[in-house]
Amino acid sequence: MDFSSKLLENAVYEMSQLPGIGKRTALRLVLHLLKQSEQRTEQLSSALVQLRSTVQFCKNCHNISDTEHCEICANPKRDASLVCVVEDIRDVMAIENTGQYRGMYHVLGGKISPMEGIGPQDLTIASLVSKVHKGEINELIFALSSTMEGDTTNFYIFKQIEEFQIRTSTIARGIAVGDELEYADEVTLGRSILNRVPFEGSFNSN
Amino acid sequence: MDFSSKLLENAVYEMSQLPGIGKRTALRLVLHLLKQSEQRTEQLSSALVQLRSTVQFCKNCHNISDTEHCEICANPKRDASLVCVVEDIRDVMAIENTGQYRGMYHVLGGKISPMEGIGPQDLTIASLVSKVHKGEINELIFALSSTMEGDTTNFYIFKQIEEFQIRTSTIARGIAVGDELEYADEVTLGRSILNRVPFEGSFNSN
Repeated sequence: MDFSSKLLENAVYEMSQLPGIGKRTALRLVLHLLKQSEQRTEQLSSALVQLRSTVQFCKNCHNISDTEHCEICANPKRDASLVCVVEDIRDVMAIENTGQYRGMYHVLGGKISPMEGIGPQDLTIASLVSKVHKGEINELIFALSSTMEGDTTNFYIFKQIEEFQIRTSTIARGIAVGDELEYADEVTLGRSILNRVPFEGSFNSN
Repeated sequence: MDFSSKLLENAVYEMSQLPGIGKRTALRLVLHLLKQSEQRTEQLSSALVQLRSTVQFCKNCHNISDTEHCEICANPKRDASLVCVVEDIRDVMAIENTGQYRGMYHVLGGKISPMEGIGPQDLTIASLVSKVHKGEINELIFALSSTMEGDTTNFYIFKQIEEFQIRTSTIARGIAVGDELEYADEVTLGRSILNRVPFEGSFNSN
C-alpha cells in the first residue's frame, strides 16, 4: 500500500502487528480513530500502556490480577483444596462464567510444545507441584484442551505429582448440550459413549 | 465477561470500541500484547497518539499528509487540471496503486447522506467548487461509489459547477477484468453493454 503520510503508515504497521489484523483492517481501524475525537485515541492508548506496565499476576494461581492475590484466591468461600489446571486466563473466565465451579485455578500460561520451544520450565508447573507437595490440594482437575500438547502437559504434571496420591480428574468430553449427534465428530461421539453417565431422570437444559 | 482485573477490563473495553472488534477479539488482542514486550505496546500506543495529535490534511486535496501539501499535490509531474473526486483517502490509495492515473485528487470526506445527517457543508465541496471557479480544473472525474448517496453527491457537485462548463466524467462501471459474465449482477452487466467501448484488437490482461 502506498501511504501519503509516514505517521499513518507507521500507525497502520503497528496495528497490523496484532494477530488476525491485516493491513487493510489496520487501515480501517486507524482511519476510524482519526474520525473520532482525539480523546478516544488517548483513552485507548493509555488503557493499553497502563495495563501492560502495571499488570500483575496472582502469586497463587498466576491469573491476571490488580492485587497480589486475585479475587478468586482471596475469596474465603472458594475451596482451596480443589484446583482446576487451565492454559490461560481466558479459560478461567470461561469456567467462571458457567457459575458451576467453587474451587480455585492454576494458570499454566501455555502448554508444553517442543515445536514452539515451550518446555515445562516456561510454564508455572513448578509452583503447582510445590502446592501439591505442601499438601494444600486434594483434587486436581485438568482442563487443558485435548490436543497432543494438552495431553502431553497433563501427563507431565501427572507424573510429577503421582507420588503424592491426590485425586486427579479431567473435564468431561462429549457432545455439546443441544447438539445433533449426526454432526458430531467420531472421536467426540466415541468418547461420549465410552464415558456415558447414569441416567438420572432429570437434566440441566443449560 | 467476568474480568479478574479492572485494568484488563478497561483495556478490553477500549479495544472493543473499534469497528468490527467484539469483546472476545478485543480480549485476544489485549492478551497478545501482554505476552509481547512492553515496548511493543508503547510503540503501538505512541504511533496512534502521534498520528491522531499531529495529523494534517493537504490544503489542496484534503488527503492525509505530513506536510501542508501532500506528495501528490506537491509533485510537479502530476496534471493539476485533471481532478478525481473521491470519498476518502482509501480511494486515493486504491487508485494510486493502479499506477494508471497522473492527475490529482479531491477527497470529499464522505458522501451526502441525510439519513446519517451528513450535508454538503460537512464535506469539502466548497473548496472543490472554488477551485473550479478559479479556472484551475479542466476535467473532473467522479469516482464515488454508485450508491444513492454517491449519485446524490455527484449530482449536487455537478449542479454547483455546471455554469463553469468544464468536462466531467465518471469512472467506467462494468464487469471486472477476469470475471465470468454468468456471475455478474444484472445492473452491472446491463450498464457494461450500454457503455460498450470499441474493440481495439488488443487488451490489457491486468
